[in-house]
Amino acid sequence: HTHSPSWRYGLAGLLAGTGVVLAYDTVRVQTIEKTSSLPIFSQEEVTKHRSLQDGVWVTYKGGVYDITEFVAMHPGGDKILLAAGGALEPFWALYAVHKQEHVLEILSEYKVGELSAEDVKKQQAVKSSDPYSSDPERHPVLHINNLKPFNAEPPPEILSDSYITPSAFFFKRNHLPVPKVDPASYQLSVEGLPGGVLTLSLEDLKTKFSKHTVTATLQCAGNRRSEMNKVKQVKGLNWGIAAISNATWSGAKLRDVLLAAGYGPDVAKWACHVQFEGLDKDVTGTTYGASIPLKKAVSEEGDVLLAYEMNGEELPADHGFPLRVVVPGTVGARNVKWLGKIIVSTEESSSHWQQNDYKGFSPGTDWDTVDFKSAPAIQELPIQSAVTTPADGAVVDRSAEEVTVKGYAWSGGGREVVRVDVSLDGGKTWQVAQLRTSDKGQAPEPSPPPGQAWAWKLWEVTAPLPAEAQELEIVCKAVDNSYNMQPDTVPPIWNLRGVLSNAWHRVKSGCLAPM
Amino acid sequence: HTHSPSWRYGLAGLLAGTGVVLAYDTVRVQTIEKTSSLPIFSQEEVTKHRSLQDGVWVTYKGGVYDITEFVAMHPGGDKILLAAGGALEPFWALYAVHKQEHVLEILSEYKVGELSAEDVKKQQAVKSSDPYSSDPERHPVLHINNLKPFNAEPPPEILSDSYITPSAFFFKRNHLPVPKVDPASYQLSVEGLPGGVLTLSLEDLKTKFSKHTVTATLQCAGNRRSEMNKVKQVKGLNWGIAAISNATWSGAKLRDVLLAAGYGPDVAKWACHVQFEGLDKDVTGTTYGASIPLKKAVSEEGDVLLAYEMNGEELPADHGFPLRVVVPGTVGARNVKWLGKIIVSTEESSSHWQQNDYKGFSPGTDWDTVDFKSAPAIQELPIQSAVTTPADGAVVDRSAEEVTVKGYAWSGGGREVVRVDVSLDGGKTWQVAQLRTSDKGQAPEPSPPPGQAWAWKLWEVTAPLPAEAQELEIVCKAVDNSYNMQPDTVPPIWNLRGVLSNAWHRVKSGCLAPM
Repeated sequence: HTHSPSWRYGLAGLLAGTGVVLAYDTVRVQTIEKTSSLPIFSQEEVTKHRSLQDGVWVTYKGGVYDITEFVAMHPGGDKILLAAGGALEPFWALYAVHKQEHVLEILSEYKVGELSAEDVKKQQAVKSSDPYSSDPERHPVLHINNLKPFNAEPPPEILSDSYITPSAFFFKRNHLPVPKVDPASYQLSVEGLPGGVLTLSLEDLKTKFSKHTVTATLQCAGNRRSEMNKVKQVKGLNWGIAAISNATWSGAKLRDVLLAAGYGPDVAKWACHVQFEGLDKDVTGTTYGASIPLKKAVSEEGDVLLAYEMNGEELPADHGFPLRVVVPGTVGARNVKWLGKIIVSTEESSSHWQQNDYKGFSPGTDWDTVDFKSAPAIQELPIQSAVTTPADGAVVDRSAEEVTVKGYAWSGGGREVVRVDVSLDGGKTWQVAQLRTSDKGQAPEPSPPPGQAWAWKLWEVTAPLPAEAQELEIVCKAVDNSYNMQPDTVPPIWNLRGVLSNAWHRVKSGCLAPM
Repeated sequence: HTHSPSWRYGLAGLLAGTGVVLAYDTVRVQTIEKTSSLPIFSQEEVTKHRSLQDGVWVTYKGGVYDITEFVAMHPGGDKILLAAGGALEPFWALYAVHKQEHVLEILSEYKVGELSAEDVKKQQAVKSSDPYSSDPERHPVLHINNLKPFNAEPPPEILSDSYITPSAFFFKRNHLPVPKVDPASYQLSVEGLPGGVLTLSLEDLKTKFSKHTVTATLQCAGNRRSEMNKVKQVKGLNWGIAAISNATWSGAKLRDVLLAAGYGPDVAKWACHVQFEGLDKDVTGTTYGASIPLKKAVSEEGDVLLAYEMNGEELPADHGFPLRVVVPGTVGARNVKWLGKIIVSTEESSSHWQQNDYKGFSPGTDWDTVDFKSAPAIQELPIQSAVTTPADGAVVDRSAEEVTVKGYAWSGGGREVVRVDVSLDGGKTWQVAQLRTSDKGQAPEPSPPPGQAWAWKLWEVTAPLPAEAQELEIVCKAVDNSYNMQPDTVPPIWNLRGVLSNAWHRVKSGCLAPM
């Protein structure tokens, strides 16, 4: 296929940022071909094209596009490479600027084929003996830490580009294969209360209880574990800084369901914990499990949800379809997905993940000396922040005179982030970043009541490049409204499981002298 | 009048917060002129100068001073305007920090005249009695940071010798003279609720409401400020590590009193704060004031008390006789003593101490750039710990082969301390200390429910002396059950008011070789 000169002109105008309308006016409208004599490609073939060397291919609504030549012209810069080898749809959902006719027109110029019908219908793929065979398709932009079970995080810059993380990019942390659940026959069982066992269908949960919506950030206890690995090897997935994401969750309040199942003040006299069992199980039939304090579960302000929606749509398979627990302010591991059973109890969950995992220890404790009973199960997480832009090792153009640093900040337990300090010189001097609680240009969300700040804040600071500096050591640290602060360095908080990695985040960036 | 360049330098240093002592050393001492060719002014004339527009004049020991230019440089801020048009003596009696030679020197620069002999006689006739003359006797072991108002802390080793701090040794932090209150005629007023004003006598509080007892640690926001002063001068009392103590408090629950005064769920729809006014006041009649979130005040688990007993006895005068607020888990400044009035409100307390003090800022924020509205009033405090034994600079006898290190650890917001790590080598290696919640040999207090750990833990570790070490650098850091950790170093958390000083505590101790 060839590009007409008029198209090149139009794209150059688009790139300059001034000529979008102009280009649109002067260009002949070309519609996407309905019938096509183009070749059929498999997803596997498409996925091979993820670089300028191998070509940059993407899919969109069943079409395959070779956009290699367009990369240099993309108004959004290199970011387009994140989509290489996969579907454009979630990116275009994230960057809504693409939802314009002329963008579709540009894309149509690059069509090289059709995606195989088989891959289009991949979700109906035939079962095999692999327990992970029915795991859903994932977006190729995700950085995979482990394939089976699936554990992956988005590129960091995606996080700070969207206050609400699109579900496709939301970090995935599965402990077991994704179970296939038929929503029609699905039943949730609630046990341990005076009323006996209560069984609820998905329909019951949606119709018999008020629907509540909460914006809450979830973070894996192992987020930023890779920084601990650099100090000394730990056991666990080598997460970067993006095992954290923010979404809007809707569902019934756990409190309401427990009240319906017979919870009353008398129960609080003997019960202390609410256990959750997932429908995901290992080959022995052991299900994923965790528990939270009863107090959190029944508190009106605790905002614990039995969520059936994420970002306004049905829960995706990777995030617990048809029902998951969302425990705002609490470590990801207690937000049990594919929820099968709730048990009110005197005891914590006896699961491996509650008893012998997801706990913090002293840096002096090793696998020979560790006593898992000596530490509490992680529930609320401590104050956290990280730099998403520039990336570590990125080169800053000195001719720009200024550098913009972006990132996220969040604290557990509903504690609101009140300040983020940013340093360009490794922590010698600091400036205060601008915080926001919505996407740019949109009205900020109303301030949450004290103790119910469940969602992160995105932050940004634009500062003059220090004169003469050959290298920037960018550092961020956040403060929450209990004035908790992040520790300075990683070694003193190192622990054998590599959890709770919340030291100042440090990024090194070279300064390129102007030509 | 003119200022010599050397004085300008001195004042600039004072303003910058770093040079107080330096400026004092380098400046030629100028005494107030005894004889003067300056004009004579009447008190009536002086009183006309009470604003920046009309000039700000004050008198001191018969001299008249135009301090208009100094107002912006006053370390205590606008408060200086309260003295405009009148005598400084009663203010300086109240704020004894002024009783230093260099303050007199600064004042002398602004002299513009003499007060008429007639008006000097009138002033002497009025002779203000010392507002601190009725302050109680204090134990001589206390280390006094400021006499008027009285601010003092016990020797650190006393803290770890007793799980409950005896009242005489409990740190004292008064902002104003101790008021003399007659318990028989004492009345507490509760305002802002639908039921109108409720007035309660001490007898009412003791007999009409259940008596509750809570063991709670109080800590001044400025505890360990001296460590910040070593980095760069801050404004505030130079507290060591003992502006923290633990006591048992008994009284009525604030929740119960608010319910009796008409509090109900409807109130929470418009009110957000509960303000407290003390009976302690300055010469203008301004009382001490503070507020806490309504949510904390009315929560069943908040355990906020209107306390009339401390450690099983009547409240001592220095701790608020006959009634004080105890807000467990919250900074000392909100635990208002000599409580006179409670106001349920849409607004925080408008007091200086709530609005323009007791807030945390970035290390890059100075007195020229600070915007007090940009930071939240401190309520819950962050995780804290310190070494009480050995003292900094103490010599450890090497022949003993072991060293015992003791200290305290506490976190705000009811978060329980779950671990204290101790290092003898400046933070390279760590061991875990033993924690206790009672005096040695006594049964530990039962574990508090989650979120209600109001009392500190004492800790202790006995470890072999590192071979060859000439010096120990003992370090401690604590972890609470939200896994909040202390920052490593002081400079990155330095702030202009020197509050929230909770970096690792470091103590150096020499090792004496065996004879």
